[in-house]
Amino acid sequence: MQVKLINYTPNPEDAIIKAAANCWQSTPRDEILDLIIKAGHLTPLEFATFNFEVSGVSRALTHQLVRKRVGVGFAQESQRYVKYNENGFEYVTPPRIQNCDKSILYIDKTAHQIYQQAMFIIQVAYEQLVDIGIPAEDARFVLPNACCSKIHVTINYHALFDLAKERLCDKAQWEIRELVAGMKKEVQEISTTLAGYLQPKCYWLQRCPEKRSCGKVGFLCEK
Amino acid sequence: MQVKLINYTPNPEDAIIKAAANCWQSTPRDEILDLIIKAGHLTPLEFATFNFEVSGVSRALTHQLVRKRVGVGFAQESQRYVKYNENGFEYVTPPRIQNCDKSILYIDKTAHQIYQQAMFIIQVAYEQLVDIGIPAEDARFVLPNACCSKIHVTINYHALFDLAKERLCDKAQWEIRELVAGMKKEVQEISTTLAGYLQPKCYWLQRCPEKRSCGKVGFLCEK
Amino acid sequence: MQVKLINYTPNPEDAIIKAAANCWQSTPRDEILDLIIKAGHLTPLEFATFNFEVSGVSRALTHQLVRKRVGVGFAQESQRYVKYNENGFEYVTPPRIQNCDKSILYIDKTAHQIYQQAMFIIQVAYEQLVDIGIPAEDARFVLPNACCSKIHVTINYHALFDLAKERLCDKAQWEIRELVAGMKKEVQEISTTLAGYLQPKCYWLQRCPEKRSCGKVGFLCEK
Amino acid sequence: MQVKLINYTPNPEDAIIKAAANCWQSTPRDEILDLIIKAGHLTPLEFATFNFEVSGVSRALTHQLVRKRVGVGFAQESQRYVKYNENGFEYVTPPRIQNCDKSILYIDKTAHQIYQQAMFIIQVAYEQLVDIGIPAEDARFVLPNACCSKIHVTINYHALFDLAKERLCDKAQWEIRELVAGMKKEVQEISTTLAGYLQPKCYWLQRCPEKRSCGKVGFLCEK
Repeated sequence: MQVKLINYTPNPEDAIIKAAANCWQSTPRDEILDLIIKAGHLTPLEFATFNFEVSGVSRALTHQLVRKRVGVGFAQESQRYVKYNENGFEYVTPPRIQNCDKSILYIDKTAHQIYQQAMFIIQVAYEQLVDIGIPAEDARFVLPNACCSKIHVTINYHALFDLAKERLCDKAQWEIRELVAGMKKEVQEISTTLAGYLQPKCYWLQRCPEKRSCGKVGFLCEK
Repeated sequence: MQVKLINYTPNPEDAIIKAAANCWQSTPRDEILDLIIKAGHLTPLEFATFNFEVSGVSRALTHQLVRKRVGVGFAQESQRYVKYNENGFEYVTPPRIQNCDKSILYIDKTAHQIYQQAMFIIQVAYEQLVDIGIPAEDARFVLPNACCSKIHVTINYHALFDLAKERLCDKAQWEIRELVAGMKKEVQEISTTLAGYLQPKCYWLQRCPEKRSCGKVGFLCEK
Repeated sequence: MQVKLINYTPNPEDAIIKAAANCWQSTPRDEILDLIIKAGHLTPLEFATFNFEVSGVSRALTHQLVRKRVGVGFAQESQRYVKYNENGFEYVTPPRIQNCDKSILYIDKTAHQIYQQAMFIIQVAYEQLVDIGIPAEDARFVLPNACCSKIHVTINYHALFDLAKERLCDKAQWEIRELVAGMKKEVQEISTTLAGYLQPKCYWLQRCPEKRSCGKVGFLCEK
Repeated sequence: MQVKLINYTPNPEDAIIKAAANCWQSTPRDEILDLIIKAGHLTPLEFATFNFEVSGVSRALTHQLVRKRVGVGFAQESQRYVKYNENGFEYVTPPRIQNCDKSILYIDKTAHQIYQQAMFIIQVAYEQLVDIGIPAEDARFVLPNACCSKIHVTINYHALFDLAKERLCDKAQWEIRELVAGMKKEVQEISTTLAGYLQPKCYWLQRCPEKRSCGKVGFLCEK
C-alpha cells in the first residue's frame, strides 16, 4: 500500500483557525483549534483539505472507503475502461493468509498457496474472456476483491477527523486501518498538531462502544 | 436481479407539492410538480423517499452504486461478517458472457464455460481458506466482483431523479441501468407521474453530452 | 410556534430494523435498534424519514436551522416572492423580552414596549417602500430577524438523532431547542421508542463538552 | 461587499487533472479538464478547494447562501455571541432603494430616507434592549435582514461550478449574483481557465429554463 499526500490547503492549521475566529470575531490564535475540537464545534475543520494518491489497496477496501459520503471525493481507476495488460492484475494478500502456518488434512497446501493458485487461475480466465472478445467491463466480473486499485481521495479535515474515529479503531478492517494510519503519517509531515487529533473514537469517548472491545480503551494512536 | 419497493412516503406526489407550495405560499395543486421540475427548482423533490430491497446484483454494481453520496443511504450485506454457507456464493453472469457464441482456437471452451469454471474454483478456494481457519473478512479477498450482494437503498426522489439521468443512459453499465429501470418500474406502481420524470439526461438536455452517443438522443425510457 | 408531522415513512422502526438486519443477514427483531444506536452504527437510521410543517418561527431560527446540510431538506416561504399583506408581518417575541420587568432611567418603557414599537415602525417602513414601488425582494431588507417564517423540513432519523444531540442541549438557542422538542413530541405520537433516543449529547457522552455547563449532565429530555 | 480568496489548493487545475487522469490511467494533460466538464464527469472537480473571506453582505444573502449543502462549509459571525458596539451595526442598502427617485404623495421622503430612518430606529431599539439587560441573542431579533455579516466560505470547484450555474443567472437575487461574480473574479486571478467555466446555467443548456427569461440565453458572464 502506498499513501501519498500530493496536495493540500497551505498552512492548514491557520486556515482552520482563521475560519473559527470569524464566528466570534476573535483574534486568530493557536488555542482556538483545541477549543473547537474539544467543544465539538467542528465545521471550521472543513477549511483545510487534503488530496491523497493511494495505490496498492484492494477493491475490498475501496468498496468500503467510498461509502463515506460527506466531506470527501474520490477518483478511482475504472475496471470498465482500464484493461489489465499481459502482466496481469496485481493483488493484495492479507497478512493472515500470507503468514498462516496451519494446514488441513485433505489438501497438502498452505493458505498462501491456495490463495496464489486462485489468483493465477482468475488471471488466466480474465485473459481468455478478453481474448474471446468479452468487453473489459464484463470480463472484470471474474476479478477478485483482492485486485489492486488506484484511488485519489480528497478529504477535508473534518471528514478525516471522523474517518480516524471509526477506522483507527482496532476493530476496523486491517487494510482500511492501515490506510488511515498512512494518511495520518502523511499529515504528520506537515502538521504534528493536526495529526495528533486523528484518534480512534474511544480516545474521545473514554470508553469503548464496540460489542467486543480490544481492551485498550482510550489508547493513543501514535503513528 | 430483484428490486422491490418495500416502504415509501405515503402520497409522495402530494408530499412534494405541499412542500413546493410553501415556498410561494400558493395553493398546492398538481401542476406545481411539472413547474418545479422544468424550472430546475428540485429541493421539494426531497420530501418523498423510497426504500428499496435489492438482491441478486453483483458487487461490481454495488461498488459503483454506493459512490452516490447525496440523498441516499445504504445497508449492505457484509462480507466481513456473513460467511457463505456450504451451498457457496451466488453470482451474476453478464449476458454478453452467457450468450457469447464465439470461440478461440487454443481452448475448446465457450466464454460461459470459462466463467463457470472460474467461479467453481474460486468457491473451492474460499471454502478451503475458511476451513483452514482464515476469517471470512480475509477469505473474501478471493471472491469475485460477480458475487451476489443484498443491499437496501433509501433514496429521496431528488436523488432518484438525478440517478435516472445518469444511469438510464444507454452508455451506463448494463447492470446498474437494469437496477434503475427496476426502481422506475416499482415507482410506476404507485405513481405513474413520478415514474414518468425518471429519464436519461439526454431527455432533459435534448442533446447527448457523451463522447460516443448511442444515437437515440432524447429518447423516452418507457419501462 | 407550530410543529406538525405531516408525513413519514410508515412503520419507521420496522423500516430501520429491516435495513440493519440486512447487513448481517440476521432476522429483523426489535433489539437491533438499540444495538446499532449504542454501537454507533447509524446508517440504517436513514431508512425512516419525517416531514414537518413548521410555522410561527423567526428567521433567526431558520437561518440557523438551514445550516444543517446532511440528511435534511427544506422548503421555506420566500421573502423574495411573498409580499406581506395589509395585516403586516407576524413576528416572534423572545420570552426574555416579553417577561422582562427591568427598566432603565432614561426611557420610560419596558423592553417589550421598545420591541413592539420597533416592530411597528419596521412594518410602516416596509409598507411605504412597497408603496413607492420597491420590489419585495429589496423592501424585505428592513424586515427583522423576528419576522415569522413558514418552513417545511424533511429529515431522516439519523439526521434528527444528530440534531437532537446538539439542539436539545440546554446551551442551544431557546427557539431552536423548542423546535426540536416539538419535533420530538410529534415523533412520540407515532413511536415512543424512536422519540426516546432523541436526547442531548451529554446523555450519550455522560459528560458535558460545553465551555460553561448547565450542570445537568446526562439529563433525560422527557418531553 | 468584499470578497477575498484567502487560501486554496495550489495548482488547482493540475490537482483536478491528476485526479481525473487516474480514472482512466491516462497521462494528465490540459485537455482533460475540458473533456470532463463537457461530459458532465464532474467529481474530479472536487480536488480543488477555495477559501473565501466575505464581508459587507446582508444576512438576507447569507440565509440564502448557507442553503447550499454539498461541497461547501461556512463559518459565520454569530449574532448570538457578537454584540454590536457603540458604532452600531453596518447595513447593506439595495441599489434600487439607494437610487430610487420616485416619491409618493402622503409622505415627503425618498425610499432611501425611509430606509435610513428605519435603520436608525432599529439601532436605537437594539441598544436600548441591550442596555436593559436583554442578551445579545434575543436583542438581535430586532435587527434587519440588511444587517452586515462576515462569513468565511470553503467551497470545492465542483460546488462553485454548480453555484455559478444558479447564481450568475440574471434572475438570481442581485446581491448573491454579485457575490458569485466576486468569487469568479478572485478565481480569475489564479486560473483564467477555471474562472472561464463559471457560467450561468443557460450557457450550458443553450436555453433558459426560467419562467420569465432575461432574454440573453447562453450569454457569457465575462467578469
